[in-house]
Amino acid sequence: MNILGIDIGGTKIEVCVAREDGEFLAWRRIPTKAQRGPEPILKEIILTARQLLEEVNLKKDDLTGIGVSAPGPLNPEKGIIYQAPNMPGWVNLPVKKILEDKFGGPVFLENDANASCLAEWKFGAGKGFRDMVFLTMSTGIGGGLILDNRLYRGANFFAGEVGHQYILPEGPVCGCGKRGHLEALCSGSGMTKRLKELVGKEKGQMWEMVLGDLEKLSPEILIEAAKEKDPLACRFLDQTINYLAYGLSNLIFILNPQAIILGTIVAKTEGLIIRPLRRRVNELCWDVLTGELKILPALLTQKPGSYASLSVALEGLGKW
Amino acid sequence: MNILGIDIGGTKIEVCVAREDGEFLAWRRIPTKAQRGPEPILKEIILTARQLLEEVNLKKDDLTGIGVSAPGPLNPEKGIIYQAPNMPGWVNLPVKKILEDKFGGPVFLENDANASCLAEWKFGAGKGFRDMVFLTMSTGIGGGLILDNRLYRGANFFAGEVGHQYILPEGPVCGCGKRGHLEALCSGSGMTKRLKELVGKEKGQMWEMVLGDLEKLSPEILIEAAKEKDPLACRFLDQTINYLAYGLSNLIFILNPQAIILGTIVAKTEGLIIRPLRRRVNELCWDVLTGELKILPALLTQKPGSYASLSVALEGLGKW
Repeated sequence: MNILGIDIGGTKIEVCVAREDGEFLAWRRIPTKAQRGPEPILKEIILTARQLLEEVNLKKDDLTGIGVSAPGPLNPEKGIIYQAPNMPGWVNLPVKKILEDKFGGPVFLENDANASCLAEWKFGAGKGFRDMVFLTMSTGIGGGLILDNRLYRGANFFAGEVGHQYILPEGPVCGCGKRGHLEALCSGSGMTKRLKELVGKEKGQMWEMVLGDLEKLSPEILIEAAKEKDPLACRFLDQTINYLAYGLSNLIFILNPQAIILGTIVAKTEGLIIRPLRRRVNELCWDVLTGELKILPALLTQKPGSYASLSVALEGLGKW
Repeated sequence: MNILGIDIGGTKIEVCVAREDGEFLAWRRIPTKAQRGPEPILKEIILTARQLLEEVNLKKDDLTGIGVSAPGPLNPEKGIIYQAPNMPGWVNLPVKKILEDKFGGPVFLENDANASCLAEWKFGAGKGFRDMVFLTMSTGIGGGLILDNRLYRGANFFAGEVGHQYILPEGPVCGCGKRGHLEALCSGSGMTKRLKELVGKEKGQMWEMVLGDLEKLSPEILIEAAKEKDPLACRFLDQTINYLAYGLSNLIFILNPQAIILGTIVAKTEGLIIRPLRRRVNELCWDVLTGELKILPALLTQKPGSYASLSVALEGLGKW
């Protein structure tokens, strides 16, 4: 019962060989170097996978399944990546077919947000919840929905785009081109853009921290300044948490989940964001919806891509 | 295969005897007269049901199931109505037990929004969709979610409260006490409240239509004036459609449904609301989400409560 897992990202790729129970037998991270295009990248992935299998004395026939997590949009049924953002040439790429030809099958493909959602549900903070929302705040804001004990994908596999809720209709432009989305306000890139504007105007401690170079501003700088109780950073963080609370509240009213799992930025800052966020969500929602609701940081901060791709295979194989 | 259906509302109650295929054998509507409290109301429901069964020569043993649609919050698993708004005394009422004692079983209970959603899915505009959102705009805004071919209820049966999305954080107070919800802006009562304020200030054709009596303003007056191209009514309707489009867009990004079915006010005005709404939703969402999406008026405007309660029984019996 061995799984090959492949997590494809715009900057790095994780390849792993694991057992069903989540024990990793071999694992490697390689830089994507996306500019070289899909062919050399896929070749390196295949080579790496073969090396890992060799290291642990397994043959391709010893694999029960292969899980692939990749940036969307993609079609998990057909196993095709339609277009991976920031990865030139990744257009209509039949990943499933390519990998099945090399390793035998079956290959399961899922977008990275759904894959991370499955991973947190199977191995992380979401264990045991029947209805949960996973939300990750990195460059963008992605999400995944576990509803009635299964991943909900939607009409054409786009469900869970929780970052594109409208929070502030006249707000800043989102990466997707629309205005006022949650992602435009609370994602890593959205926060950085808003920070630049604010710090450019009001200066203060964060301006000193980056020696006046606004390009150096980041969520990390914000968090550092907020921990030191810089008033500007605290005000900005409060506002960001308020926007995020509105986004979570909409999800709570619409989906009435048992748990919301928050990844990346929130997972790394725990109490600083989650505690005030929780308070604000309690104000914005009905008690009957928040009474039993858990809002938790994601747990899989080590090898997240490996857990994600492993989980995609396990889900595909119906192994839980 | 005969079903007894009971739809309990704050102003009227529908009782029906139907066949599984949706053919109604007998049907009656009675006024709730909610002030008299649950006991006489339940007695009248039971009496009416007995009369209807007699009229069509059926005994309680000929029933395969009983469906009850009622205002929530309620617990469909336990068959208890926790509290029916605007119905004094309907607190922790074991409807399932009461009716099973009288008619045998099994009794299935569902909140009215979910019941109407099931009805539209089984018999109405939602036929054949795997993933759909039902949204009804009457006094409040209720909703139901069919996801992966089944009703999604959420952690404690509150899923689908789509009317309580935040659309305008500083907006008017909602029936639920929070501020800026979709329901506060676009429900029948929300629209009426906003209309009173606007017409009180700007007067115009609608003011003349109600002879200066602001209490007579209603969505119907608005629609009438908008049909006659009254500029104030058209501006108000545009704004309302815009709010509604934001609400639908959030649902589309989060759930990626195949269809959104709109009941009550929208169903009665068809093109006047749905066409501009559709245009605005197309602007606010990605093409990949709206390309195949249907936005449709609900179809079951005749005997909606009977279809709703029948559908609750069919769903409970696993008859589709």
